[in-house]
Amino acid sequence: KMLGRVLCTVLFVGAFPSPAEASQGHISVVLLGATGDLAKKYLWQGLFQLYMDQVSSGHSFTFHGAALAALEPGQRLMFEVLKKLSCPADEAPNRCAVLKDQFLKLSQYHQLKTAENYTALSREIETLLRQEGLKEAGRIFYFSVPPFAYTEIARHINSSCRPRAGAWLRVVLEKPFGHDLQSAQQLAAELAGFFREEEMYRVDHYLGKQAVAHILPFRDQNRQFLDPIWNRHHVERVEVVLKETVDAKGRTSFYEQYGVIRDVLQNHLTEALMFLIMELPTNVSSAPEVVQHKLQAFQSLWGLERSSAVLGQYQAYDSQVQEELQEARGYVSTTPTFAGVLIHSNSLRWERVPFLLTSGKALDERVGYARVLFKNRAYCTQSGTLRDAGHSQCKPKQIIFHFGHGVLNTPAVLVSRNLFQPAMPKESWKEAEARSGLHVFGQPLSDFYTYSPVKERDAYSVLISHIYHGRKDFFITTENLLASWAFWTPLLDSTSRQPPRLYPGGVENQHLLDFEMVSGGLAFTLAEPAELLSPGGQVPSDFRAIQSKFRQSPLVSAWAEELIARLASDMEEAALRSVARSGQFHLALSGGSSPVGLFQRLARHHYGFPWQHTHVWLVDERCVPLTDGESNFQGLHRHLLQRVRVPYFNIHPMPVHLGRRLCVEEDRGAQLYAEDIAALVANASFDLVLLGVGTDGHTASLFPRSESGLEGAPTVVLTESPVKPHQRMSLSLPLINRARQVFVLVLGKGKHDITTLLSRVGHEPKKWPISGVSPSSGQLVWYVDYEALLG
Amino acid sequence: KMLGRVLCTVLFVGAFPSPAEASQGHISVVLLGATGDLAKKYLWQGLFQLYMDQVSSGHSFTFHGAALAALEPGQRLMFEVLKKLSCPADEAPNRCAVLKDQFLKLSQYHQLKTAENYTALSREIETLLRQEGLKEAGRIFYFSVPPFAYTEIARHINSSCRPRAGAWLRVVLEKPFGHDLQSAQQLAAELAGFFREEEMYRVDHYLGKQAVAHILPFRDQNRQFLDPIWNRHHVERVEVVLKETVDAKGRTSFYEQYGVIRDVLQNHLTEALMFLIMELPTNVSSAPEVVQHKLQAFQSLWGLERSSAVLGQYQAYDSQVQEELQEARGYVSTTPTFAGVLIHSNSLRWERVPFLLTSGKALDERVGYARVLFKNRAYCTQSGTLRDAGHSQCKPKQIIFHFGHGVLNTPAVLVSRNLFQPAMPKESWKEAEARSGLHVFGQPLSDFYTYSPVKERDAYSVLISHIYHGRKDFFITTENLLASWAFWTPLLDSTSRQPPRLYPGGVENQHLLDFEMVSGGLAFTLAEPAELLSPGGQVPSDFRAIQSKFRQSPLVSAWAEELIARLASDMEEAALRSVARSGQFHLALSGGSSPVGLFQRLARHHYGFPWQHTHVWLVDERCVPLTDGESNFQGLHRHLLQRVRVPYFNIHPMPVHLGRRLCVEEDRGAQLYAEDIAALVANASFDLVLLGVGTDGHTASLFPRSESGLEGAPTVVLTESPVKPHQRMSLSLPLINRARQVFVLVLGKGKHDITTLLSRVGHEPKKWPISGVSPSSGQLVWYVDYEALLG
Repeated sequence: KMLGRVLCTVLFVGAFPSPAEASQGHISVVLLGATGDLAKKYLWQGLFQLYMDQVSSGHSFTFHGAALAALEPGQRLMFEVLKKLSCPADEAPNRCAVLKDQFLKLSQYHQLKTAENYTALSREIETLLRQEGLKEAGRIFYFSVPPFAYTEIARHINSSCRPRAGAWLRVVLEKPFGHDLQSAQQLAAELAGFFREEEMYRVDHYLGKQAVAHILPFRDQNRQFLDPIWNRHHVERVEVVLKETVDAKGRTSFYEQYGVIRDVLQNHLTEALMFLIMELPTNVSSAPEVVQHKLQAFQSLWGLERSSAVLGQYQAYDSQVQEELQEARGYVSTTPTFAGVLIHSNSLRWERVPFLLTSGKALDERVGYARVLFKNRAYCTQSGTLRDAGHSQCKPKQIIFHFGHGVLNTPAVLVSRNLFQPAMPKESWKEAEARSGLHVFGQPLSDFYTYSPVKERDAYSVLISHIYHGRKDFFITTENLLASWAFWTPLLDSTSRQPPRLYPGGVENQHLLDFEMVSGGLAFTLAEPAELLSPGGQVPSDFRAIQSKFRQSPLVSAWAEELIARLASDMEEAALRSVARSGQFHLALSGGSSPVGLFQRLARHHYGFPWQHTHVWLVDERCVPLTDGESNFQGLHRHLLQRVRVPYFNIHPMPVHLGRRLCVEEDRGAQLYAEDIAALVANASFDLVLLGVGTDGHTASLFPRSESGLEGAPTVVLTESPVKPHQRMSLSLPLINRARQVFVLVLGKGKHDITTLLSRVGHEPKKWPISGVSPSSGQLVWYVDYEALLG
Repeated sequence: KMLGRVLCTVLFVGAFPSPAEASQGHISVVLLGATGDLAKKYLWQGLFQLYMDQVSSGHSFTFHGAALAALEPGQRLMFEVLKKLSCPADEAPNRCAVLKDQFLKLSQYHQLKTAENYTALSREIETLLRQEGLKEAGRIFYFSVPPFAYTEIARHINSSCRPRAGAWLRVVLEKPFGHDLQSAQQLAAELAGFFREEEMYRVDHYLGKQAVAHILPFRDQNRQFLDPIWNRHHVERVEVVLKETVDAKGRTSFYEQYGVIRDVLQNHLTEALMFLIMELPTNVSSAPEVVQHKLQAFQSLWGLERSSAVLGQYQAYDSQVQEELQEARGYVSTTPTFAGVLIHSNSLRWERVPFLLTSGKALDERVGYARVLFKNRAYCTQSGTLRDAGHSQCKPKQIIFHFGHGVLNTPAVLVSRNLFQPAMPKESWKEAEARSGLHVFGQPLSDFYTYSPVKERDAYSVLISHIYHGRKDFFITTENLLASWAFWTPLLDSTSRQPPRLYPGGVENQHLLDFEMVSGGLAFTLAEPAELLSPGGQVPSDFRAIQSKFRQSPLVSAWAEELIARLASDMEEAALRSVARSGQFHLALSGGSSPVGLFQRLARHHYGFPWQHTHVWLVDERCVPLTDGESNFQGLHRHLLQRVRVPYFNIHPMPVHLGRRLCVEEDRGAQLYAEDIAALVANASFDLVLLGVGTDGHTASLFPRSESGLEGAPTVVLTESPVKPHQRMSLSLPLINRARQVFVLVLGKGKHDITTLLSRVGHEPKKWPISGVSPSSGQLVWYVDYEALLG
């Protein structure tokens, strides 16, 4: 211990600026996990670079490596790393050697294990500051440790190592930040107990990659060219891709828990995508503005479904897992090592533009890029060679942010010459030299304006510099992190049981991992080759819908997602039949949460649905204004009507709100609705009525023992619900039973008891209104998911 | 005259089948214009082919060439043509020689000039039938004469040459069929005075081209492949192209009147397009079904605007016109010899898919094709060469109906191999031989399944055979013709004054005629090169909008189309400003015909309009049901609301129809609307009110000397219109005057008088309600087109 102390005091003489020069104050950098892989590979070099860059900044520095190892072995290990620090090519060797010498002298090792260790560290820093007469500027704690250690370290730092008042604390955190929304929330909540939001710097090292970091500045500096074309009318698709040749060997203990989506897509590729698609902030360097726009972009994304992704796993993965994790020989992992994901935004700017995120291990090449491909809007009247020459508008148009590797083997920004010559900051980006014969994305490199960085900088060096400068826009805020997990978690959940397609790896993959967009989702282009299926990797047959009888009527059952897909198809078929027969389709829909997935599926997958000829009626309504969040109509509008083209006149909300009053008898709302039905629906016989079932056996807004609506005339009634809002309007059972078809949708474990009960009871509408649904001359079909059916 | 007669009687012996064989009856074919160019080049050969094909059909034939020339010179001329008739390659030479001999003997010349000539012709046919004991099957009159002669000939045929009862009459008409909607209607009406619809066979020889004629059968026979992809989700664009290398030299007297749109686009290219985009009939050989679907397809097309087209004229055209038409040297023609036109359909199937029709003379190559290019929906994970190999889904996908010429130099149907292997009828189409090194549409020919006709048949031979078989589906019905003219005439009108871009011709055109889709229309890619502008071909400056003052308020004036474009832009700007300020935009719109163009422009060109945050209110309404064709709301819905995404809750039709009654005081509709406005619009101050002006000076539904609405409270009132429907609901002047902005749109010559008047009078709302529009703290802008302003 004395050694370190002596070393320090002796060497400060030469290394510290005089107090006048050091007017900016002193910065203590503590690297936790100082002898780990990341530290060895990137972080110490990044800290050395920081020192080289900022030695004349007026700040003084000390660097504190820390780990669990005792002082002496730790010290030895750490200084072995430090001795190997390299001088960058653009630094004068003499100066670098002097600076490296100083850097070593300013660095010391600490064992940080117990609370006392932390207290001691802080005391040492305090002592040093006092002895040298230095003002404290701030402390950086860089967590290069496994996530399970976070909370403990955070607690110690918070309680023992905070800097003096007036100086800042910056803690730098490395992923993984949880492995789904819930765990990320939990971790975030724990950290929030120790640090303020502005003190935390969550690293996504992609934000330090020069090509990624330049996306927003590029969009900003080229607004005049991009403004007219950065939208769905001009952009054909956006691809964000990270292909790796390596596999997960040696890392399976981590990988088996995470998989490619958590490892790469949820963070790196999503962040790059967000820079591309977010609305451009007025000031692209303003962290709050950037975060706000990024969060809005997350809000605009459609939820992911199982069909949004294609998943793969390289064939050797299972045996690697078995070996490294000592799993049994028959162990089958469903962890994906390859994923392609289709993302859509609902914003006006990007509606219907496909965003494709792809990453995988054991692929044919190592490359990363984000690519915006524009639509071809030109017609070239001249044929032949001229069409392909020069700046022809008939050639593909694209903008590529090339992260690195690949044939270019450098970060780069490429813009098709037939688009525009981009404005690039001369101090940091230069035009790349011509390299004849080189093709990128199917075009010769000469078709592009190509720029590469003046100084190629490693992502960690860049980020360490940003931490020093307090540039929070290069780090992931808690909100940002949780928004991303909120977006990805449903896909992770819905694909967790899904066996990935196996692929041999490398160039042998051939077309096996090619995929395409099919009716709103993705699918592999080639059918599954039988010989590649591992013996254990069989597709569970329970994903297929079963058909049977329930209460003497047809029953369709499947897992919820398949069931909804089937129901939506059956509805489209009914609609087309009805329009062919009568020119129109009268559809009465229920509210509540169950049909939301159905509405979304109809809006997204059923482009052929004859909405122009469909009349949409409500089965029931809550007595609240139509614009109220509780209104059934509001939900229907949000999830379906605003996304399809039903003529205004064909939309029939229930008149629960008349003369600024809700469901007042004298306003005759129920009668008006019944009159509308009588006037427009032939024989008051809806073509299709969609119902749900409550746990109490209610359907529509017809509750057990209701005084009206269970029998009598086919009409519309006001009813009372046992739950708020109590007042309801509802089609009556006799009116429902006039329909040509009635589909009943029952979803979820919560409905298992009532489903079981209904399978046994007869026609007792007073007790269970749903049991009174029995179309007099129409057809009844039950759509019950496995959870409701089987519990 | 005797010669012909003798010739006939003598030769009938060998040529006619015995009465038993001729049980199908006799067909007389009369070719009018028998010595003209078309007859020489195609028609006689087609008739000879018909004879060869049908000699054993059981029908007997005589062929009657007719022209204005006297018998002897006409006869000589005609038989010179007949002697040169060629035997097709697939016919045995011996048989052909015999048949040719017979054909010559069955053919005779007639002078058809006077009424007596026609009577004599008919008498000759009758005599022949009687002499030979033949039953008459029918008569074909083929009009290969200039259109001005049609009426006269038609009258003679109708009055003197109709066949006996029980036999059919088929008159075959060649284009041009008018040169705009009005003239086509007139010609059609005249012909309808002489012939029944089923008797008329209007030729569009493109319908006889094998690749065009096969479009519908192809779609029919490949339904299983095409059904899922023949729509806007899969098709990127449709191109129909006819490029010619020849120019109009020698034909300028015709061409100068017609131009490329009338000559080629209105008929040939439109017909090919219709086959591609029409809903597929159940029976593609049923003429009524095909026509019905074609008409529906016409109905679905968006109207063309000037911006829908780019026009060009080859540089030598003017001097050719001057020479051939003896025009003065300074004569400048605006007749286009090149056109690219962008067409959109409003159908669910094709919404937003661009259809590009292009044709021109003096281009770099001769080729005709219709091409359906599919979207690239694939992502190829494997990079490099593999991406381009085999059936890779990442290669372009297209289906091409190749009419002829070009590098293929044959009719052909091409289907990308990564799409599907098409079903083709083996008896008529065969797989084309591989021709290495050949590239079509940027791809090697080996990328396609390629089929060419087993027998290549000239279009006229095909059509003559169809006339014989009564296949009306290969001809243009009157409805079809008028639908096409109705579609094209507005573009012809709006571009008639527009100087086309001049081009040098041939390969020298380079990129000069390349064009691209820009905000809903087309524009040449390259700016107009100054050196190519002919001295006379200056762009009239009057197309630019002028700005000035009118009634002390800002005035914007331009030709109607530019004015509407400007107004729409100003509205979008107001909307964006308002949404930025308050999160919403309250827009009150007027009904009537003037704003229709504006609504269409807003729907088509203003994708950035913040509709999601816009509230749409009505300025006034007629007391009719909302679904009534007369309802202002109905017009607004049809032209605007059903095409943009305004949330249901933000649409505020006037409650003129309450409790199944129209505008009854006690129903308090006007008060309800006023209450809605008060509840939703801050300070009851609309962000923008759009008004029109009536010839009587009324605005909204506030008429001169109205008892309500001209003064008093800012409210909603019931008013009386001098014209039907009399009852109206309207915003009052005081309510209108609370708006932040009021735009008044005045269009057309009919408004010139009131415009002039308004420029002189002061504030006299009782006399001229519009003069009372004067926003108390808002801005008033007049948008008056040149016709209204200048008369």
